[in-house]
Amino acid sequence: MEAERQLTSRRIYSGKILALRVDQVAIPGKGEAIREVVEFHGGGVIAALDEADRVLLIRQYRYAVDRELWELPAGILEPGEPPAICAARELEEETGYRAARVEPLCSFYTTPGGTNEMLHLFLATGLTLGGARLEADERIEVYPTPLSDALAMIARGEIVDGKTIIGLLLLASRSETLGRR
Amino acid sequence: MEAERQLTSRRIYSGKILALRVDQVAIPGKGEAIREVVEFHGGGVIAALDEADRVLLIRQYRYAVDRELWELPAGILEPGEPPAICAARELEEETGYRAARVEPLCSFYTTPGGTNEMLHLFLATGLTLGGARLEADERIEVYPTPLSDALAMIARGEIVDGKTIIGLLLLASRSETLGRR
Repeated sequence: MEAERQLTSRRIYSGKILALRVDQVAIPGKGEAIREVVEFHGGGVIAALDEADRVLLIRQYRYAVDRELWELPAGILEPGEPPAICAARELEEETGYRAARVEPLCSFYTTPGGTNEMLHLFLATGLTLGGARLEADERIEVYPTPLSDALAMIARGEIVDGKTIIGLLLLASRSETLGRR
Repeated sequence: MEAERQLTSRRIYSGKILALRVDQVAIPGKGEAIREVVEFHGGGVIAALDEADRVLLIRQYRYAVDRELWELPAGILEPGEPPAICAARELEEETGYRAARVEPLCSFYTTPGGTNEMLHLFLATGLTLGGARLEADERIEVYPTPLSDALAMIARGEIVDGKTIIGLLLLASRSETLGRR
């Protein structure tokens, strides 16, 4: 399918975690349209499993949705930072755990209709506990949670963060596959 | 955990599918910070399964990420529209299929660190084919795809849309659970 072609582009805002531009585009065979695009840096997400098959969930208040959420540790890519390094760094900063092994699970767009945000999800194992180093504006509580409990929290509507749902369902399908072998 | 308190709020942009505001907030015990918030209307997403256990995937070009994506049919909530109605409407508009049954699977935030977007995902069954009615700026191809093939497309990194990954993994865990009974 032929790409839409940018005719004009207007930069509305450039900020701390995002930028906004509004483009006029030509759609092959369909005329013209306005496309609003939020630019994010992308991020790393980490599903960390301990020896007892517990996944590290964090609980934090999110201003954009004005509520506390259960999430997997995650954070924004620093310029030039490989996603696996970002994910491991966020694990340590937010939970205090270091991982001996970090392996890719999945990369995905969160909202491709209006943003370019891509998240890179990793599995971390071989955990050892050090100390968390939260950023100045972060308040985070860490809960090692049996994977089966976390899946029940999705079913009950208690876990409502998209990246966290993807990470937990992938862990579940993985242990399902492993269990069958 | 105590909520962050809005001190000031600046409206940067109000557009077609999103708005942007930048707020100054007080974080209990942690001083002040800037929060950039993209406001979306939220949307409905539909995982439609036909009699042969094929899921309806659509393929469309997404300007924000400048590539074609495999997705579940989805669209933005109209003002006051219940999510299940939105999801069923988008199914029909984008694929031409009507569903006899629409039931909730999951609701989730796509990017709660910077947006308030919530998507509501439904399972549609009892499909009958009518005719698609695309919007002026939409170009969409419909592919009924065996669920096992769609799961392999996630594993190979060919399906990279978050809402679609969640829908397919939930369908898989559901048929897994049903299969065990």
